[in-house]
Amino acid sequence: MLDFNFLNPVKIIFGKGKIARLSKEILRKHKILMVYGGGSIKRNGVYQQVREALIEHQIVEFPGVESNPKYETLVKGIELVRKEKIDFILAVGGGSVIDGSKFIAAGAFYDKDPWDIVSKHAKIQKALPLGTVLTLPATGSEMNANSVISRRDSQEKLAFHSVHIFPQFSILDPSVTFSLPSEQIANGVVDAFVHVMEQYLTYPVNAPLQDRMAEAILITLMEEGPKALLSPQDYDTRANIMWSATMALNHLIGVGVPSDWSTHTMSHELTASCGLDHARSLAIIFPSLVYFQRKEKRAKILQYAERVLRLPFPSISSDGDQDKMDSIVELAIERTRQFFEGMGIKTRLRDYAINESAIPSLLEKLEGHGMVKLGERGSITLDTCKQILERSL
Amino acid sequence: MLDFNFLNPVKIIFGKGKIARLSKEILRKHKILMVYGGGSIKRNGVYQQVREALIEHQIVEFPGVESNPKYETLVKGIELVRKEKIDFILAVGGGSVIDGSKFIAAGAFYDKDPWDIVSKHAKIQKALPLGTVLTLPATGSEMNANSVISRRDSQEKLAFHSVHIFPQFSILDPSVTFSLPSEQIANGVVDAFVHVMEQYLTYPVNAPLQDRMAEAILITLMEEGPKALLSPQDYDTRANIMWSATMALNHLIGVGVPSDWSTHTMSHELTASCGLDHARSLAIIFPSLVYFQRKEKRAKILQYAERVLRLPFPSISSDGDQDKMDSIVELAIERTRQFFEGMGIKTRLRDYAINESAIPSLLEKLEGHGMVKLGERGSITLDTCKQILERSL
Repeated sequence: MLDFNFLNPVKIIFGKGKIARLSKEILRKHKILMVYGGGSIKRNGVYQQVREALIEHQIVEFPGVESNPKYETLVKGIELVRKEKIDFILAVGGGSVIDGSKFIAAGAFYDKDPWDIVSKHAKIQKALPLGTVLTLPATGSEMNANSVISRRDSQEKLAFHSVHIFPQFSILDPSVTFSLPSEQIANGVVDAFVHVMEQYLTYPVNAPLQDRMAEAILITLMEEGPKALLSPQDYDTRANIMWSATMALNHLIGVGVPSDWSTHTMSHELTASCGLDHARSLAIIFPSLVYFQRKEKRAKILQYAERVLRLPFPSISSDGDQDKMDSIVELAIERTRQFFEGMGIKTRLRDYAINESAIPSLLEKLEGHGMVKLGERGSITLDTCKQILERSL
Repeated sequence: MLDFNFLNPVKIIFGKGKIARLSKEILRKHKILMVYGGGSIKRNGVYQQVREALIEHQIVEFPGVESNPKYETLVKGIELVRKEKIDFILAVGGGSVIDGSKFIAAGAFYDKDPWDIVSKHAKIQKALPLGTVLTLPATGSEMNANSVISRRDSQEKLAFHSVHIFPQFSILDPSVTFSLPSEQIANGVVDAFVHVMEQYLTYPVNAPLQDRMAEAILITLMEEGPKALLSPQDYDTRANIMWSATMALNHLIGVGVPSDWSTHTMSHELTASCGLDHARSLAIIFPSLVYFQRKEKRAKILQYAERVLRLPFPSISSDGDQDKMDSIVELAIERTRQFFEGMGIKTRLRDYAINESAIPSLLEKLEGHGMVKLGERGSITLDTCKQILERSL
């Protein structure tokens, strides 16, 4: 096992009707910036539940945070925080709203251009306290200190993290996800699945508990994901997906093991340049990336094939049988692609009308962001990225 | 899945040599009470590592905290805290030292008899900040807000918990466990195993992720436990046991599922009255208790038999085959007992020269402490306890 530090002080409040608890979690004297997205929370009743819970609080609203939250939007939130002397930020939404709120929380105390926070990893000394009401299980942002911000004018999408942007609390009510379109549930399941894979599918370091916890989430997502599409009103299914997505990226399964965030890195460029949903970018990149890394990841792919996919294994009696193992590796990658497709997420660039002409500028972006040695051993070069993108066509 | 709240703000610092990090975790101006046990930390070098790391800090030592830490000892620690105007408590030891330190931390601000904290569940408003250097993986106290305190004069052993007694940090260096006697490693593995079982072996509530995470810890302990006895110097084995024991009782696997702490409740009486090691009390009570609860816990015992023990299952084609399932249930319980015995932990009262004459007073103690309806459904009466103890002979 590798050495590690772990800290996650987020309070999780989980269950139906828990939004009413908001009034106990935020001090009465605190002036709140309520951050949300395009208004779906007004249609599904979450907005009303939040306002009712906080009827005695002073609230300033900041709606309109878009998917892949934009710097250009968020700087207006930072201005509003300063103008209104906000004490507390309440994010009501999915990962985009929460990530955007984290950027506002950190940017409020940063006196230069807040884009420095993502582009130059400017040190964050302080952030406004933050709480969340999660409406879309996917990114895990409700229980971590990460945030990914996009910039419209430069078509960039970059991440930052800081202990100061951990939410103080997150309210997870699975029943608020009943009204989500199936594509969004599918996106969330695939996003969470890939988060787990990026902390699991590297090389073995004799950390069996972390491996099995990762496998626990993978199996649960593979079982519950399709159920959620078939029975959108089933509370337990939604609860299991919601908790799995949170556990997928609260850093617990990643302690003491190597990680490989290259699928996210490449997918961010794809989303920033071509406008694809985050999860769809992941579903395109991941199978091709693992295919090119199949030698480095071989031991873990076989473990995944056996324990998660439960593929039948041949009895290995001689060296020649390594061919059979190779075919299991390739089958495991293919089955993963089939899982994404089964969730309704297409896994080829052509499915989104993107062809090879997009590749050179994606590679340029990666190079420009210094992403030239990716993967758990830094072995994914720009040339490998090119091959991965070509295989993704 | 059941509703839940989860909060665990403990910072874990994991790896060989991490004790040196102490100086960065405790403010230089803080006067420290260093709490430890019988002096084994002086023989294995941990004491020296701690003193070297904190060479610039002012330290008052409080050695001599015993196994099943005693109220009579700990009140002297509370007096010392007040007299010396201590700012921070550093527990260096296993669960007993950490639990004792938590009691001192809470008792320091409690102006009546601190025994009220355990006997009357007196409300804790405040506690001194606390950090730990873990030397024995077992109780999980390094990452939770629980503490169990014993009292010599009344032969009582009672628990309390409070968010104020979460350690601020815990340093987990698996290499400091190399010198532990094998009985202590065995105790730790069994203690952690039973902690998981008490959060797992109840009834299903459709919480597959929690189930699989619990199974992940159980399988890891069953695999790594015997290895630790065979190869006491193997770092990864010790690391895997240490992290498993922490994860077994940091409350994460218990969120959203029922729990049944009756084995601990009964075992506390056994330890308090008969002086048995905590883990040995658990190993005696647990198999008998599950036997009497085998109908209530049937579905989960079968799941455990299949997924953790990998027992071969008959194909069930008719009602008559329920007998076969009954035999699997009994075999699963027996295999669990064999696991404890294989770790060198005897599982019968007679192995410790305790006979039926001890039972009446144990039942009296349980009744006196109000423990008359135990188990996840409150179905374990004093009469069941009597049967459990008799079967444990």
